[in-house]
Amino acid sequence: MRDTCCMCTEECLQQSRAGRLSRRAALTGAAAAAAGLVAAAPAQASPAPAARLGSRLRDLTYPLTTTFPAFAPGEEAAKRTWVTIEDDGYYLQEWRLLEHYGTHVDAPGHFVPGGRTSTELRLDELVTPAVVVDVAARAARDPDTVVTVDDLRAHERRHGRIPRGAAVLMYSGWGARAGDAAAYRGADANGTLHFPGFGAEACEWLLRRRGIRSVGVDTLSIDPGRSTTFDAHLLLAGADRYGLENLANLGRVPPAGATVVVGLIPFQDGSGGQARVFATW
Amino acid sequence: MRDTCCMCTEECLQQSRAGRLSRRAALTGAAAAAAGLVAAAPAQASPAPAARLGSRLRDLTYPLTTTFPAFAPGEEAAKRTWVTIEDDGYYLQEWRLLEHYGTHVDAPGHFVPGGRTSTELRLDELVTPAVVVDVAARAARDPDTVVTVDDLRAHERRHGRIPRGAAVLMYSGWGARAGDAAAYRGADANGTLHFPGFGAEACEWLLRRRGIRSVGVDTLSIDPGRSTTFDAHLLLAGADRYGLENLANLGRVPPAGATVVVGLIPFQDGSGGQARVFATW
Ligand SMILES: [Zn+2]
Ligand SMILES: [Zn+2]
Repeated sequence: MRDTCCMCTEECLQQSRAGRLSRRAALTGAAAAAAGLVAAAPAQASPAPAARLGSRLRDLTYPLTTTFPAFAPGEEAAKRTWVTIEDDGYYLQEWRLLEHYGTHVDAPGHFVPGGRTSTELRLDELVTPAVVVDVAARAARDPDTVVTVDDLRAHERRHGRIPRGAAVLMYSGWGARAGDAAAYRGADANGTLHFPGFGAEACEWLLRRRGIRSVGVDTLSIDPGRSTTFDAHLLLAGADRYGLENLANLGRVPPAGATVVVGLIPFQDGSGGQARVFATW
Repeated sequence: MRDTCCMCTEECLQQSRAGRLSRRAALTGAAAAAAGLVAAAPAQASPAPAARLGSRLRDLTYPLTTTFPAFAPGEEAAKRTWVTIEDDGYYLQEWRLLEHYGTHVDAPGHFVPGGRTSTELRLDELVTPAVVVDVAARAARDPDTVVTVDDLRAHERRHGRIPRGAAVLMYSGWGARAGDAAAYRGADANGTLHFPGFGAEACEWLLRRRGIRSVGVDTLSIDPGRSTTFDAHLLLAGADRYGLENLANLGRVPPAGATVVVGLIPFQDGSGGQARVFATW
């Protein structure tokens, strides 16, 4: 089994490479050609490894507030009281939400024209084995660090092979900054953001060699903050896989052996959206 | 164990009875006194029975659209495209949402002043054993029917005792109407709604005798549509328990033995809110 993968993943990766080559075009609005990238994306070829709901539960979801750091200032959620118990007999709020605020999913359609949207991700894709790759020590020295293939190989030497269909989650320690938008975004004087993410080569390796289901991060984006090419997003979306952003508590999940449950709200035509994410083992 | 319950549930129920007596006052805005109802609500006294993530997954969540039937017309969600791949390099939507639209949770604070809000429901309260009580045959003849204590006793004779900490879910067959707001709401010429729900006595029995965690329905409200007193809401909220509304696919979940996972978005100060809910067995 080592370093092999099923046809579908290989096929997806070829599509993904095509997508990556055209990423600049896509980002400048000329990539209608990319619309075919996932047209042939097959259904999952085999059931995911049995996921288990263990006695341990760890919430990976930040409270959905109006002050959590947004990717761009002004994209925070807003809310107001709709009715009150005092005046109306019951209480509820109205929310204004962008689909990528707080702990959320990036569906393939977020970056790939014609890619699957939130209602099209199947429930069995949202319950998967989880692997946590710890780059916190390096990230503390270098906010621009990325998860590399070497990191993944080192993780496997210590914790075993990354299971097919896994969620591969980067723990960078960035959650310690989540209460301070400036620190969490890491914008420099030019407005360039600085936080860790997944390197393109690591994404390609995970997709082709390990047939993963998703990658996730404890930062604002699966790409590092300074990225202008969004390789991780384009590779994942091009391979019909999803991302998880702004995950909490990854430092409190075992490196291997947990199951992650992604309670994505099935937003109509959704590019992703808010999800209740937790780990169990 | 039969017909006994722990101190905390008894205590909650006494609070809940007090709440019920004052429900009219609460609904007319004079129930500041009810603010103390859950003040003494203790933490869960013992761990819930081990929940299991089985090989079967059944989604109980409706897609979040702008056309799903709302409790009151005009309360539907709204969305608009925020950016597009063509113009911006990536795609996402903005939503306007009330917390009680679509498949969602009613937190205790929805009906009880000072009751717990969405961020205060613990993850271990959101993963529980599930029991499905089938009243579809009766509901087809009588849209005002309610789940009764007799229904619950009959269910137990066939399927075993309702576990402590369970989600007790009413299957009325109402999902067949979800594509037609008029049929799903069942409003008559006077504007009174007609759909099935939980009777007050059944709620009291479940809280006191079975120590349940939640009740859920495949309709717009845990109370029957014609209710003006919201007994089920007030009893549950008064006992510091939550409700689940607009659940899908309950007819495809076993009567007993499944686990329900309630992926509630942890809305700040939330009266409840959208959740990805699924069953596994
Ligand atoms: Zn995103
Ligand atoms: Zn509600």
